[in-house]
Amino acid sequence: VKAGVLGSGRVGQAIAGRLSELGHDVVAGTRDVEATLARTEPDAMGNRPFSAWWAEHPQVGLATFAGAAEQGEVLVNATNGAASLQALTAAGADNLAGKVLLDATNPLDFSVMPPTLNPVNSDSLGEQIQRAFPEAKVVKALNTVTAAVMIRPAMVGDGDHTVFMSGDDADAKATVAALLRDFGWRDIVDLGDITTARGTEMMIAVWLRMMQAFGTTEFGYKIVR
Amino acid sequence: VKAGVLGSGRVGQAIAGRLSELGHDVVAGTRDVEATLARTEPDAMGNRPFSAWWAEHPQVGLATFAGAAEQGEVLVNATNGAASLQALTAAGADNLAGKVLLDATNPLDFSVMPPTLNPVNSDSLGEQIQRAFPEAKVVKALNTVTAAVMIRPAMVGDGDHTVFMSGDDADAKATVAALLRDFGWRDIVDLGDITTARGTEMMIAVWLRMMQAFGTTEFGYKIVR
Repeated sequence: VKAGVLGSGRVGQAIAGRLSELGHDVVAGTRDVEATLARTEPDAMGNRPFSAWWAEHPQVGLATFAGAAEQGEVLVNATNGAASLQALTAAGADNLAGKVLLDATNPLDFSVMPPTLNPVNSDSLGEQIQRAFPEAKVVKALNTVTAAVMIRPAMVGDGDHTVFMSGDDADAKATVAALLRDFGWRDIVDLGDITTARGTEMMIAVWLRMMQAFGTTEFGYKIVR
Repeated sequence: VKAGVLGSGRVGQAIAGRLSELGHDVVAGTRDVEATLARTEPDAMGNRPFSAWWAEHPQVGLATFAGAAEQGEVLVNATNGAASLQALTAAGADNLAGKVLLDATNPLDFSVMPPTLNPVNSDSLGEQIQRAFPEAKVVKALNTVTAAVMIRPAMVGDGDHTVFMSGDDADAKATVAALLRDFGWRDIVDLGDITTARGTEMMIAVWLRMMQAFGTTEFGYKIVR
């Protein structure tokens, strides 16, 4: 499949690289291609610049949000949650229409510490995106684990843990589930419609505290039943 | 230990019964003893009335919130989250002072469907209780699973899943951890201070959706790491 991965940061790099490794034709999308390539220093979170990653993944294309969204048949939202609606607007509603949009984001507000969620509780970023782009087929998934675990779940617990999906379109969820299985996920829980994204986005609150308690981001949730 | 379990509903019955079974001297607390004993029908959620449960657990004492809090050396808040502050006020700050208060509640607001949390995100019921009763040693725990699993974690996944603790007092957390181990919990994660209760309370959002997706309340979270 031809995939457009919106976002050139840690999550975008991980997903674009993994999709490419699995044989897909991948274009990464960024707000400003020149600015993205000009960055040579790690960002505030210590993530290496896109250019350094790209040197090792030259087969991945790079374009604007609109360019990547236009070329991709399946799209991934791997942008910063706080900027996702803006990034998707730049990508263009026409370029999203009719396509699967795997939304891997959480709407974290880092202006307070510990970060809070906005929206939360009676709304979610997944729902906001679906409402803003009603012709896209939004599937929230992968947002409960760190980027490295998203694409290689076997990195923790031999892969014996759970990933969740929320979305209104059954076919889109089947497409996403197939990608998740290719990534190595074995336990894929379909929670229901896109409103269930509230639940998985709200899991980031305890995730952040576990990150502090464990001193690592490499962990996952196995739903035992 | 002499335990005061505040709340005579499903969670209170489960915890009071289990503590009693483990050899503790238990007093259940309720708002209105006469009214609690007068109820002979299941409640709106289909839970059997206290009197039916009590007939099988005659060794458990029954008192007002204040009576149970006064007699208990270790206290459990198993009241309805929306009514917890009121119940604990009735229990009396003096009766809570200096004592471990295991808080097993979630602040669910059932006036909307699906239920939302109040407080949420930048506050939690655990913190509200700790602020309202600064001399109590509040430890949030057990609020991530259904009552039956709280007291018998081996009911799902052979007990190979995780329970969380949040609280400001290390000794109180040690006391609670010992009780949790007696219940059968083997993986006990200390998340940190009482503000980390935000994280576990917010897990109820996805829990409710999993309950619907699975058609059962009998599941738990194993943190794979």
